[in-house]
Amino acid sequence: MSFPISQQDIEKAHERISPFVHNTPILTSSSIDEIFGCRVYFKCENFQKIGAFKARGGLNAVLGIPEEIRQKGVVTHSSGNHAQAVAMAAKTCNVPAYIVMPSTAPEVKKKAVKGYGAQITFCEPTQIAREENAARIQEETGATFISPYNDYKVIEGQATSSKELFAEQENLNAVFTPVGGGGLLAGTSLSAHYFSPTTKVYAGEPANADDAHRSLKAGEIVKIPQPKSIADGLLTGIGDKNWGIIKELVDDIFTVTEDEIIEAMRLVWERMKIIIEPSCAVPVAALLKNRDQFTGQNVGVILSGGNVDLGRLPF
Amino acid sequence: MSFPISQQDIEKAHERISPFVHNTPILTSSSIDEIFGCRVYFKCENFQKIGAFKARGGLNAVLGIPEEIRQKGVVTHSSGNHAQAVAMAAKTCNVPAYIVMPSTAPEVKKKAVKGYGAQITFCEPTQIAREENAARIQEETGATFISPYNDYKVIEGQATSSKELFAEQENLNAVFTPVGGGGLLAGTSLSAHYFSPTTKVYAGEPANADDAHRSLKAGEIVKIPQPKSIADGLLTGIGDKNWGIIKELVDDIFTVTEDEIIEAMRLVWERMKIIIEPSCAVPVAALLKNRDQFTGQNVGVILSGGNVDLGRLPF
Repeated sequence: MSFPISQQDIEKAHERISPFVHNTPILTSSSIDEIFGCRVYFKCENFQKIGAFKARGGLNAVLGIPEEIRQKGVVTHSSGNHAQAVAMAAKTCNVPAYIVMPSTAPEVKKKAVKGYGAQITFCEPTQIAREENAARIQEETGATFISPYNDYKVIEGQATSSKELFAEQENLNAVFTPVGGGGLLAGTSLSAHYFSPTTKVYAGEPANADDAHRSLKAGEIVKIPQPKSIADGLLTGIGDKNWGIIKELVDDIFTVTEDEIIEAMRLVWERMKIIIEPSCAVPVAALLKNRDQFTGQNVGVILSGGNVDLGRLPF
Repeated sequence: MSFPISQQDIEKAHERISPFVHNTPILTSSSIDEIFGCRVYFKCENFQKIGAFKARGGLNAVLGIPEEIRQKGVVTHSSGNHAQAVAMAAKTCNVPAYIVMPSTAPEVKKKAVKGYGAQITFCEPTQIAREENAARIQEETGATFISPYNDYKVIEGQATSSKELFAEQENLNAVFTPVGGGGLLAGTSLSAHYFSPTTKVYAGEPANADDAHRSLKAGEIVKIPQPKSIADGLLTGIGDKNWGIIKELVDDIFTVTEDEIIEAMRLVWERMKIIIEPSCAVPVAALLKNRDQFTGQNVGVILSGGNVDLGRLPF
């Protein structure tokens, strides 16, 4: 089986972005291990630039645009971490960033995007309004569109997190990520395929937004209209580029309830003293729920991000 | 000048406790550095066993008791992290722990102490009631009393945190700790004296509980009746054993307001994605407030602990 992204592509992406991102620490916790019945290695992308793994994909996409074209800027639509990632990457490359955000996006995220000097266009909180605004700006400015999740350069970038994890922990039986649009999961499964082929790949997904889970069962992309979950980073439907990789390389996708997400989030905050956002707690909840299947194993978990509004916590 | 604790005492303490505690990670944050105008190295004792540096002192004290005597158990009074530290150390040594706790102690801390198999005696929330109960239990059981802060073995244990910091970061111009009873500050100043003599030693203290600050100005111990601060780990008056060391080796003690403590706590949560308790935010607030004095320097901060009640956050 050959894939649209090669081992060398991921290695090059890693070289490209390494000067600008953190090789994030891997943390363990004996009290978590006791509860889970396995040894868990947490790859802390919540400590990444912008507080999330999306810095990797955003940077790789923006750095990958030929210099001449890049000067015209980059454009994307996102309510969350991808907006910050593209804004940060554009600032790093000293080019304009045009970010379309739904007017309902949290103040803290609007502020962070502004902090990177991006030009924000607010729009109605619908997918169509977001896409139309981004398309219009693209036409007006000549800026390059960076998809939040369905882009091979973005996938390459996201793949570098687990590449680092596998380099440091050669003994992993399994690795877990969240799945929303599928960029992190696709990238992680490619990294496992190339750099740690005996490691099985799993994802956690909110039961309330379980299109990836259903797609894997059905063997084709299943769409869910307007899913709602506290895991606000995982509401996007799976992208077709990601799907092509995920359907071949992912072993299983486990769903978890809203309560299980909040419980896992709280567990990590209390036991590990680190801040993770609800979306990031989803694979933790998935591993906890299915821990009998992993007893005694070495399991990696990509902690995807830590951007939470401290004034609006679920506990 | 000679001190009651030698370099060798700290080295031995470190050997003694190392099998049972974490060599905690040192984290940095470029966004914090930008705000502070200096390079800050955070020694993360919030990731320590029991979620606080007190694991070090508690273990060194309990492990230091001769085997025969230790079998009768250990006793202490504490509403907070020291209670957990002694309970954990006793469990590690497989001896009984008797913990006197004020009835007003947070449920989460009572639960944690019980989790280590300690026997808890509840008492009125006054210093006298705590001391009387501990003395009675000591008499009845023959258990050894472990002072929460005024004990050379405890100081030796607390000194091991900055010993690790200095070993990893040889370039520190200054190091900050919080000060309550003074065990961590005394230990840190001794470690600086022996292992990193060019590093200046500072503490942060709540303005509402500034007995150590006042003592340093007055040249003798000043007591404050019933101080109140959100930094609940720093309400204890400074111990005379700690004071003998602090008055010789500490360069300055900065005070901070309640608002400054909460702001610093929030800053660390938001920028570093790690959980610190209010007491732990005090030296961060002190450095932030006095940052002009440290521009361009390399500054260590001991993050003392991360045990917060998530249901009762100040923001």
